[in-house]
Amino acid sequence: MTSAESDPSDSSPVATEKIVSLCARRGFIFPSSEIYGGINGFWDYGPLGVELKNNLKAAWWQRMVRERGDVEGIDSSIVAHPRTWEASGHVEHFSDPMVDCRACKKRFRADQLEGIEGCSSREGTSEHDFTEPVGFNLMLQTKIGASEESASVAYLRPETCQSIFTDFKRVREAARQKVPFGIAQIGKAFRNEITPRNFTFRSREFEQAEMEFFVHPSDRDRWFDIWREERMAFHREIGLQESQTRFREHAATELAHYAGRAVDVEFLFPFGWQEIEGIHDRGDWDLSRHSEFSGKDLSMTDEDGERYTPMVVETSMGVDRTALAILVAAYCEEVLEGGESRTVMRFAPKLAPVKVAVLPLSKKLKEPAHAIAKDLRRSFNCFYDDSGNIGRRYRRQDEIGTPFCVTYDFDSQEDGKVTVRDRDTMQQERIPIDGLARTLRERLEGEA
Amino acid sequence: MTSAESDPSDSSPVATEKIVSLCARRGFIFPSSEIYGGINGFWDYGPLGVELKNNLKAAWWQRMVRERGDVEGIDSSIVAHPRTWEASGHVEHFSDPMVDCRACKKRFRADQLEGIEGCSSREGTSEHDFTEPVGFNLMLQTKIGASEESASVAYLRPETCQSIFTDFKRVREAARQKVPFGIAQIGKAFRNEITPRNFTFRSREFEQAEMEFFVHPSDRDRWFDIWREERMAFHREIGLQESQTRFREHAATELAHYAGRAVDVEFLFPFGWQEIEGIHDRGDWDLSRHSEFSGKDLSMTDEDGERYTPMVVETSMGVDRTALAILVAAYCEEVLEGGESRTVMRFAPKLAPVKVAVLPLSKKLKEPAHAIAKDLRRSFNCFYDDSGNIGRRYRRQDEIGTPFCVTYDFDSQEDGKVTVRDRDTMQQERIPIDGLARTLRERLEGEA
Repeated sequence: MTSAESDPSDSSPVATEKIVSLCARRGFIFPSSEIYGGINGFWDYGPLGVELKNNLKAAWWQRMVRERGDVEGIDSSIVAHPRTWEASGHVEHFSDPMVDCRACKKRFRADQLEGIEGCSSREGTSEHDFTEPVGFNLMLQTKIGASEESASVAYLRPETCQSIFTDFKRVREAARQKVPFGIAQIGKAFRNEITPRNFTFRSREFEQAEMEFFVHPSDRDRWFDIWREERMAFHREIGLQESQTRFREHAATELAHYAGRAVDVEFLFPFGWQEIEGIHDRGDWDLSRHSEFSGKDLSMTDEDGERYTPMVVETSMGVDRTALAILVAAYCEEVLEGGESRTVMRFAPKLAPVKVAVLPLSKKLKEPAHAIAKDLRRSFNCFYDDSGNIGRRYRRQDEIGTPFCVTYDFDSQEDGKVTVRDRDTMQQERIPIDGLARTLRERLEGEA
Repeated sequence: MTSAESDPSDSSPVATEKIVSLCARRGFIFPSSEIYGGINGFWDYGPLGVELKNNLKAAWWQRMVRERGDVEGIDSSIVAHPRTWEASGHVEHFSDPMVDCRACKKRFRADQLEGIEGCSSREGTSEHDFTEPVGFNLMLQTKIGASEESASVAYLRPETCQSIFTDFKRVREAARQKVPFGIAQIGKAFRNEITPRNFTFRSREFEQAEMEFFVHPSDRDRWFDIWREERMAFHREIGLQESQTRFREHAATELAHYAGRAVDVEFLFPFGWQEIEGIHDRGDWDLSRHSEFSGKDLSMTDEDGERYTPMVVETSMGVDRTALAILVAAYCEEVLEGGESRTVMRFAPKLAPVKVAVLPLSKKLKEPAHAIAKDLRRSFNCFYDDSGNIGRRYRRQDEIGTPFCVTYDFDSQEDGKVTVRDRDTMQQERIPIDGLARTLRERLEGEA
């Protein structure tokens, strides 16, 4: 269950540092507990980041659950019964191979020793004195219960999918579903990564959007292909382009012993091609194991009256990774006519944290502009800004990817119209205030 | 920081067991890891529960963040820098007083010894032999980091608000906000409750929706009153009636030492009046402490050039508790004309997990009915059901609170109309299929 990463063999035009800097400055994403110096591998989403991430999760939920009759959603607890992780194999196998240096006492991943710094022990040796590799379990542990004696070890889930398997029977019966059908959920998971890195790409607390699709054994290949295409279609919908995404089929040697097939959706980050989602044929491994460990029958009867354990096709998306991919894909620096430059985030409109900014041309026009903002807020996330010259205010909105700026000027009081400026084309157009929300909604949905 | 509970002095008509049973059977809420016998204090939300809870969270976010210009949202990590919990006082003080029995080794809350079972130690004593009370910290601990040596203790947050305080400066600057303004977030929190009980009311993993509003010291009383009224208006919006809710003002002796004032919003559960939300005047305690512990200046300058630390008015809603209140408030058993009875969940339409059910009168009408369901799913969470007689199908939808049932019959092919049946009045009406989504949307929003 360790993940192999491809080398940064290629690089996209925007440097990670630019994304990190814009994210902190404008309040997308910044270190957790920043005033205490941060905590390695943990990140907070600010006012714009939470809207972006929520929009991404809503788009996934809409497409994967609400628009389908054959997928049910759930929201399970982060802490589950510890037997869950024995059955899943995580207690025994979810580990990275680690070596300790006997001299300097530092710990390293055994498969990442190339190019590491030399030993800096007091004796002045420069070569490390490594122990044999030992598995280091990546699950975070805690203790639940009242007394020290009776308290039992529990784990923070390292993936959201296992409770889908343990809830399988209950959900199938309550929702009266028949195979083929799926169960989906979005939620937090935790891994004690040795070396968190690449901004939010590899962190210790992260969010997953996973769907397990249960099929008859005769149907697994067909559904694998369907989900593979469907998931790439989703990534197009949220604005990741063909040139920035690719499939990577896992070689037989990379596969978990129970897996039939695995394909990653990779995105071209500044630090190379990296996985943002995996589509996995998990076979009947999970249901069989949970059936064995719980003593509960999780099998079904097919049309011919034969018992079988359903096979599982999984789609597992990293929410934070995909949000980061959206930020990278949207980032654009342009030189405009006249030599001025702008940074513009070309978010797909449905993903944009702010949909509309309302900008009175003068502070004297605050009142009617506020009234428009108040009205628009019932429909969209809307930002109001009356400080600085209008050009600077447009730039601020470009930098956070706001699709439309609505300017209220001195003519507006006469003609009942406002100027609507498009983020991408920078074209301006006079539009009646009456019905403005509807006009903007149509344009946002048309472009989404 | 321990919470006092009011006695179950009154009871509402529906028994908790009925809610628990309906929730499990229909897939609203059931025990986490149920196939392993469950894990005390942890619950999973099923297909209907996740929609109900998401609708509640969306209603809160819409009203508290998106419709306001003066509240910013965030989404911070569950694990924060451990200094956070030293500054907040949780490491030192977040505990319940516990006693152990020297004979039977059981542990009890010192303030809840009345009416407990006698001692059942092997010696056959019936009186417990209690130790002196000792504080038992309710925070769940874990360890972060690679090597055993360097791994550091961290905590799962026991409340979501502290990261709002540690992120205060970053958010204020990034969002260019001025006092008065607020920061809001929804997220998971964890407490190692000694005795989880009352279904999801007191659990070990739960979700909070908290908002911290930062004001000038001269303004704190005014804003406390504004938020007190605003929060009760929200509870009305989501369907909790006047007769089921009340304010409870904390007595001076109940207040935390830093608190100016505290008012609970209480709901009449089957197990008595209990808190679902707190409105708290926290003074400048939190920002002052985090400033002291981090060495970062979190004060501001007022219009007269004076430095001050903002005062905080907090609104803190338990999401699971409020979802449970919604279930209790919605539950209704009716005897209909003719003596038939039905259970109906009278959810406010915007909270209802399923908005519309599409029911073909005969399986021969599957195809056109499926087409209608597919179209409606783009706008609403929609359920399709073609099994059983139509009366039974209506009952199933009543029991999960679906506002509208759309029946496609043999006339529909001729007249292009469907029968729309209203959950509450049970009135039926012929409505054109053309524009059906818009018609239903208008009715749902009109009634919401």
